Amino acid sequence: MNDTLTIDAFLGGRVQLLQPRTGYRAGVDPVLLAASVAARAGQSVLDLGCGVGAAMLCLAARVPGLHITGVELQEDYAELARRNSSGAAEVIVADITALPREVLRRQFDHVIANPPYFDRAASREARDAGRETALGETAPLTDWVKVAAKRLKPKGYAHIIHRAERLPEILGAWPNGMGSVEVLPLAPRAGRLAELVIVRARKNGRGAFKLHPPLILHAGERHTTDAEDYIPAVKAILRDADPLEF
Amino acid sequence: MNDTLTIDAFLGGRVQLLQPRTGYRAGVDPVLLAASVAARAGQSVLDLGCGVGAAMLCLAARVPGLHITGVELQEDYAELARRNSSGAAEVIVADITALPREVLRRQFDHVIANPPYFDRAASREARDAGRETALGETAPLTDWVKVAAKRLKPKGYAHIIHRAERLPEILGAWPNGMGSVEVLPLAPRAGRLAELVIVRARKNGRGAFKLHPPLILHAGERHTTDAEDYIPAVKAILRDADPLEF
Repeated sequence: MNDTLTIDAFLGGRVQLLQPRTGYRAGVDPVLLAASVAARAGQSVLDLGCGVGAAMLCLAARVPGLHITGVELQEDYAELARRNSSGAAEVIVADITALPREVLRRQFDHVIANPPYFDRAASREARDAGRETALGETAPLTDWVKVAAKRLKPKGYAHIIHRAERLPEILGAWPNGMGSVEVLPLAPRAGRLAELVIVRARKNGRGAFKLHPPLILHAGERHTTDAEDYIPAVKAILRDADPLEF
Repeated sequence: MNDTLTIDAFLGGRVQLLQPRTGYRAGVDPVLLAASVAARAGQSVLDLGCGVGAAMLCLAARVPGLHITGVELQEDYAELARRNSSGAAEVIVADITALPREVLRRQFDHVIANPPYFDRAASREARDAGRETALGETAPLTDWVKVAAKRLKPKGYAHIIHRAERLPEILGAWPNGMGSVEVLPLAPRAGRLAELVIVRARKNGRGAFKLHPPLILHAGERHTTDAEDYIPAVKAILRDADPLEF
């Protein structure tokens, strides 16, 4: 894999990521995930399944002074995350369901995750082995949710981005003690089904469940030109490192 | 209760409902619920907790030739439902968790429900006893969902309208065999949190979960005059008996 890398710019060049040319490649999803986290300097963040580091490094670029730990199952992606972070994040190679003691003895102010999107029981494997592990589920989605909850400090926040069709599983997987659950649907265009959701939950949160109005990503009814057509608020998140508040 | 009744028009006068002046009074919620059901002449419909019959009679007004059964726990509301339906629906007095044999031996093409909105464990009782039973939960919400599923024919559809903050409970309560779950958020105005959700599920459905764009009820950013300000598509549902398609 390492002989065919690309370097890609995120947040208007604030983040440069080495990525495998043919494996799993970060898109806008981890950028939106990172933008949704209201972290403050001095806080700790755990990125479960950090890949090459897209989400955690976008968060680090927007909020200076965070203490970030990324956990990645695949050694070659973890190695890229280390190179990409230049010391801005600690990267640990581990299965999220078998975290090493150094992670298990800590709790974090924020846990973020962009778990694999496809349930292998219901879909076909990707050809590239790295892409396969990044896209297909090794641990079930419910484990990602439970591990995220478990690694949070009291009052800490979890943020998970996933395909909208998996929302019921995510909502059903929060263990007791997690509350103040909120869902931000992400729809490609106005009037369309949500394709992605960002789910936020708080440890010891007691607020009622909230279903937010969708964030519409693209302007117009369909993609008409080769030019990108993100609506201005989304462009500001993706290019200017604006927070995604909800 | 029966000495203080009002008669109220729904669907532009197509449906006239006797209701208690001071007890639980049907609003737009059962009208929207009824509008969301794609029933066809000849099909059977079960309305769980039918109250004075708002949802089932709005459905009957839009789709002629249905065989409708309403179940209502409170005898006085059931009696009003009988009077309101003028034979268009059969009304049975029963607790939805202890349905009589005549209902238990049947399955329906559609089950609809507008269950009590407030969890009594977390809220205060209403002063009026009838309003209390209609608003507060006697059976837990999860029972409504399970009973709805159980009373469906294979390929039959359940539609439930409820407060958006209860969505996780509803999504988690569908028993095995229910699928093709879809959620239509109902938001009072553009950009606001959803206050209500209509949840659809199909017996033996195999489709992925769908999160639809919200139906916005009112025009403008806030209520500015005493005049009603429903957006035209909603007005057509409420006044002209248009279907609510999603």
